[in-house]
Amino acid sequence: MRRILLIATGLLCLSAQAQKLTDYVNPLIGTKDMGHTFPGACVPHGSVQLSPDTDTIPHNVGGVYQKDAYRYCAGYQYEDESIVGFSHTHMNGTGHSDLGDILLMPTVGAIQLNPGVKEDTRSGYRSAYRHENEVSRPGYYSAFLDDYGVKAELTATERVGIHKYTYPAGEGNVIIDLDHGIYNYDGKVLWSNLRVENDTLLTGCRITNGWARMNQVYFAISFSRPILRYGGKDVSDKSVYKGFWRRFDMEHDFPDMAGRKLKTYFVFDMSDGTPLEVKVALSAVSTDGALKNLRAETAGKSFNELCALATEKWEKALSVIKAEGDEDIKTSFYTSLYHTMINPSVYMDVDGAYRGLDRNVHQADGFTNYTVFSLWDTFRALHPLFNLMDARKSKDMLGSLMKHYGQSVHKALPIWSHMGNENWCMIGYHAVSLLSDGITKGIVLDNGQALEAMLNSSTLSYYDGIASYMKLGYVPLEENQSAASITLEYAYDDWTIYHLAKAMGNKEVADRYKERAMNYKKMFNPATGYVSPRYTDGSWKKDFNLYDTHGQGFIEGNSLNYSFFVPHDVKGLISCMGGDKEFVKRLDRLFTEDLPAEAYEHTEDVTAEGILGSYVHGNEPSHHVPYLYMWTSQPWKTAERIREVFDKMYKNRIDGLCGNDDCGQMSAWYIFSAMGFYPVCPGSDQYVLGAPALDSIEMQLEDGNTFRVKAENLSAANKYVKSIYLNGKPYTKAYLNHADVVKGGELRFVMSDKPNKRKYKEEEKPYSLSAESN
Amino acid sequence: MRRILLIATGLLCLSAQAQKLTDYVNPLIGTKDMGHTFPGACVPHGSVQLSPDTDTIPHNVGGVYQKDAYRYCAGYQYEDESIVGFSHTHMNGTGHSDLGDILLMPTVGAIQLNPGVKEDTRSGYRSAYRHENEVSRPGYYSAFLDDYGVKAELTATERVGIHKYTYPAGEGNVIIDLDHGIYNYDGKVLWSNLRVENDTLLTGCRITNGWARMNQVYFAISFSRPILRYGGKDVSDKSVYKGFWRRFDMEHDFPDMAGRKLKTYFVFDMSDGTPLEVKVALSAVSTDGALKNLRAETAGKSFNELCALATEKWEKALSVIKAEGDEDIKTSFYTSLYHTMINPSVYMDVDGAYRGLDRNVHQADGFTNYTVFSLWDTFRALHPLFNLMDARKSKDMLGSLMKHYGQSVHKALPIWSHMGNENWCMIGYHAVSLLSDGITKGIVLDNGQALEAMLNSSTLSYYDGIASYMKLGYVPLEENQSAASITLEYAYDDWTIYHLAKAMGNKEVADRYKERAMNYKKMFNPATGYVSPRYTDGSWKKDFNLYDTHGQGFIEGNSLNYSFFVPHDVKGLISCMGGDKEFVKRLDRLFTEDLPAEAYEHTEDVTAEGILGSYVHGNEPSHHVPYLYMWTSQPWKTAERIREVFDKMYKNRIDGLCGNDDCGQMSAWYIFSAMGFYPVCPGSDQYVLGAPALDSIEMQLEDGNTFRVKAENLSAANKYVKSIYLNGKPYTKAYLNHADVVKGGELRFVMSDKPNKRKYKEEEKPYSLSAESN
Repeated sequence: MRRILLIATGLLCLSAQAQKLTDYVNPLIGTKDMGHTFPGACVPHGSVQLSPDTDTIPHNVGGVYQKDAYRYCAGYQYEDESIVGFSHTHMNGTGHSDLGDILLMPTVGAIQLNPGVKEDTRSGYRSAYRHENEVSRPGYYSAFLDDYGVKAELTATERVGIHKYTYPAGEGNVIIDLDHGIYNYDGKVLWSNLRVENDTLLTGCRITNGWARMNQVYFAISFSRPILRYGGKDVSDKSVYKGFWRRFDMEHDFPDMAGRKLKTYFVFDMSDGTPLEVKVALSAVSTDGALKNLRAETAGKSFNELCALATEKWEKALSVIKAEGDEDIKTSFYTSLYHTMINPSVYMDVDGAYRGLDRNVHQADGFTNYTVFSLWDTFRALHPLFNLMDARKSKDMLGSLMKHYGQSVHKALPIWSHMGNENWCMIGYHAVSLLSDGITKGIVLDNGQALEAMLNSSTLSYYDGIASYMKLGYVPLEENQSAASITLEYAYDDWTIYHLAKAMGNKEVADRYKERAMNYKKMFNPATGYVSPRYTDGSWKKDFNLYDTHGQGFIEGNSLNYSFFVPHDVKGLISCMGGDKEFVKRLDRLFTEDLPAEAYEHTEDVTAEGILGSYVHGNEPSHHVPYLYMWTSQPWKTAERIREVFDKMYKNRIDGLCGNDDCGQMSAWYIFSAMGFYPVCPGSDQYVLGAPALDSIEMQLEDGNTFRVKAENLSAANKYVKSIYLNGKPYTKAYLNHADVVKGGELRFVMSDKPNKRKYKEEEKPYSLSAESN
Repeated sequence: MRRILLIATGLLCLSAQAQKLTDYVNPLIGTKDMGHTFPGACVPHGSVQLSPDTDTIPHNVGGVYQKDAYRYCAGYQYEDESIVGFSHTHMNGTGHSDLGDILLMPTVGAIQLNPGVKEDTRSGYRSAYRHENEVSRPGYYSAFLDDYGVKAELTATERVGIHKYTYPAGEGNVIIDLDHGIYNYDGKVLWSNLRVENDTLLTGCRITNGWARMNQVYFAISFSRPILRYGGKDVSDKSVYKGFWRRFDMEHDFPDMAGRKLKTYFVFDMSDGTPLEVKVALSAVSTDGALKNLRAETAGKSFNELCALATEKWEKALSVIKAEGDEDIKTSFYTSLYHTMINPSVYMDVDGAYRGLDRNVHQADGFTNYTVFSLWDTFRALHPLFNLMDARKSKDMLGSLMKHYGQSVHKALPIWSHMGNENWCMIGYHAVSLLSDGITKGIVLDNGQALEAMLNSSTLSYYDGIASYMKLGYVPLEENQSAASITLEYAYDDWTIYHLAKAMGNKEVADRYKERAMNYKKMFNPATGYVSPRYTDGSWKKDFNLYDTHGQGFIEGNSLNYSFFVPHDVKGLISCMGGDKEFVKRLDRLFTEDLPAEAYEHTEDVTAEGILGSYVHGNEPSHHVPYLYMWTSQPWKTAERIREVFDKMYKNRIDGLCGNDDCGQMSAWYIFSAMGFYPVCPGSDQYVLGAPALDSIEMQLEDGNTFRVKAENLSAANKYVKSIYLNGKPYTKAYLNHADVVKGGELRFVMSDKPNKRKYKEEEKPYSLSAESN
């Protein structure tokens, strides 16, 4: 009996294994061309993203921007045939970059301290590799390095990258290149040092001046066997003042190496055939912090044990949603879900110490501090997704924004922040949207303090034309080349402030920001009914081109797309565009009329597949646009457009992402849309209904409730929504409320191959500011 | 009655004022030529030395050393006619340099962000000034800046520099130049930033790669009135990646300035005629730390109050010795005493947090952490002086050395350390001497740990030939150009280890290090009876020049001087030199035979007045030599030589110091010698008797005891010691024991114009290792 039971258990395990959600994640999706994802190992929202870098094109040379650097935002391009090494920090799918800190590379033979060129891998420490020998899955990566016959395997904890190198018998080297980096340039490393504490332990730091203006990365590195010999070289040709250090031979066994371009090597006796394991702990605080992280997360654990833990973490994290349906779509779905759980990432030591925006070390008491906030992208769907799926995590992220605010000399919330730095990338002040959306959806914050932060951020006079915006109601073109985009986004952001102030009963602020929220109207040129930039004197830009992004007052979106960015007042937007009929015509035009070639050239960050007609999905400003039909007389077209986006832009292929994943926003769009609804206007409590991509999706909600989305009769042909039932009852509204979802239940879509051309009544349509009763 | 009493009290005050010890300190002494002292304001052993810098000659240009930089080790040369500004960190009398952090300069009129050249002060922010308008006294400095009509006054607390600027009516500027520095070079500043927290408060940091390999200086600056407008500029021509920062106008009111060469300005409305007061707090830990220091030390206190406190601190510190005698000599004496109380300096925040050698932040629990240990200089007399006068302070310094040891990746005590860095300057491992001397003189340490640190430091194989030294008994010349000097110093240092191990009953170590202590003998070339360098094969350097320092195997001293560096075994030394008669002859020759011109050229760091015959007092290796007569048949010559040194090398003049003060060693020599005794062999408990310089010197000892030295009949002619009485009884030994001094009492020298030619019996002579009974 007992034996039979054991066998049965064994079978269950096998069966369970076959159904693992992590099996549906392919981290290589998005690593070719524009996705800018990385294939390496990390745990959900971990500080460490340990991943292969396949080239080292500098961001600039002598101050001149190097266009090809852009391809290496995540350090890896699938088409490359060599690996430079494995570095410990990466961003998921950004369109600008940084990091690539602390590169390790296993080699054999003569020590080479420069990476060499990809055309001849023997010219440096890099190695050729082949995808047939590459494995990438959540929490694990491996590649076989052909030049050296070394199998390199990677896994990670939150704060530690773990390497396992299987060398051929003999001596094995580990190169540690503290000069290597993503978006590197001559002088990016301000300083670095490396101490050989004993024959198995290193500590050190590197400080860079990159996209993060000053990024301090401290590390502690332990080896599973003693170092035989080691050394390093500062290859900087700067007039480094080495003073009395000249007395020592840093190239041979001197344990206190330092410099501006420090490259080091460590040699091990690998003759016993067992692999070398290397644990690399990071900290933004100090080497003491890195040592604490190393010990707390990895002490006594082998690579294999830590790898199993990493897999478990992913399995648990992904199990928040149980999806059933087409296998390819499941892969797209879970890979997207995976990509929503990389950034923001934890930014504090195990003891809660973290480096603040003011460069001081702070203590995170009672919250987890996060960094990498690509807010222009992620306010749209990623943070709303967290508010739905993991409010605790979201609360910590909002808390992290508030700490940033408290540490800001501008007394402002972050714009785009990473590693305790504000990099000011992109436009708007969308942190206000996150706060408003979080509070609306029940996250408990100090609302008074949040509102104060939002008010300060929206009145920061020297930021992107705010002073003029407050005077004129728009940002004039002569002040900012992205003036039109900025004005639209300020108006939306201001609506989120209005919305919160109103809920708090603060009429004065609500009134003021309601007026600001209507500023989008000032941008519609009555001559065209599209948004155009204006000058201070009120005049419109001449020779305006609707199709082009470049030089037209927009950024990452032309007027054809951007003019639809009024998520908080679609009813008002429809009026601006001339009413329902014209509005639908324009939406149709957007999705069907091909972008002229010269305009496409100026479209940033997207592949050809990221464009549907003129609709650009590879950039974010249009992400809500397919849902705008829901306010019109032809709501059924939303399902049609969404299906087109699903099919064209989220493929189960290495190049399956049509644009930068943008820290999870592209993926979060997919998760929401595949579930059948989308947060068109974060800050409101509504999700606008679309059409699901999978037969069944079951969300585990935080308080134990379950929300299930069923798509009856879903198929390639049956892409239209015939009818909807919420908890068994016919559901006639064009949107769900947040409360409907979080209390649990079932939303059933009945799909059909024919559109249901029923129109929504006004009161069934989603939120519009203009429709507010007041 | 009452009124009369008050008048009497008033008179007493006046009378007391006239007798203030600080009146006998002239910080300008040593600021001309070679002294390398600074004239600015500080408190005893304070972290801040706020002082005018008069030029900015870089240490190197494109890697080429600039000889003239040496003149500006302390930032100030008396002969200069302009002041660049007032920076907050300086070293007292070094022969290599660094620091000059955080320069402020008050100006009026158009903003100039570059310092300009001294030939034309209008070419930059610097200003002409005249010595007639300059005041320098302990804790206070002021100058009138002729270009701007601004009176600048400075004072300091331990961690805060306080400025008072009296501008002409109108607008007044403060330039804050974060690029300025002592021994600067292009690229020395790795990074700096400045935040305008509010209209009276700045915070920021600067990180430099100088003599201190990585020096982190954080600051908090408060103004006594609001800033009208401000700005800054990063003048670096490096390919600084400024990224999205380009959007902002850092030159006008942008509160978050940063860069590699950051120069900033702040404008104030000075129309009311009251001065601007500026408080600049430093921290090595963080801007939070600087703010804590600012508040703890200066909150609510005006410049005048803080200045009075600084004066009081000096008065109290100097009052450890009450000296009476010739007024000029008193000035030399108290100025010297002042100079012994600048370095080492406190290196921790008010809350005990400090930056360690490992760059981590540590907490100083139960001790004060110090930095600036110029040990090659100061082991000789400065630290022995502290052991005598202020054992508590000395204990903290020894504790600081032990913390350095604990944080050292080399597991070694400091060689020359400053600002949490080891700069490896000069030779030997003299921290062992400090520990041995301290423990011998009753400072309670963990002796086992101290011995361990000493043993590790003396066996650090890759430091200055130690591996060969341990094998051969000397450092061979082909390994190190200072091999002969090094071997002599290792032998002495080893004696201090022997001495402690013996006291601890550790026979194994004692025996081993006794043997090492005798290694000096291996350096005496029997052909000459002088020390010469040797090669690994045992052969002596050919074409050896006794007079020259350059290229002869020595450093900062030729063989003629250095051969006497056997402080722990003078008896053995006398044998090496051929016995008493020859030894005395050689001493006489040293003090009377002039150095050949070409050899003088190669003598470093001294003025012509720093040389007596061939005896070089401006450098340290010979400091004990005048006392060596006390082991010979002509002990009376010690008094003669000392008087010559007093008269020639310690003058009450701006150029009164004959060589670098070397962090107080030159001054400590004077303090001891002026009191009539000197610690020839630190580590032993003996002070070798000389001849005092003042009629009466009274030391306040820590436990309330008083030790008084009287010099009866002292005069220019009466420079010889006729007889000595200790506590009224004739004293016949050539040395005092530490215990004799610290228990209090009176040492009375009866002076005469004729030498007392009595010879000391063997048992009356000071310590020699060779004379030890085993």
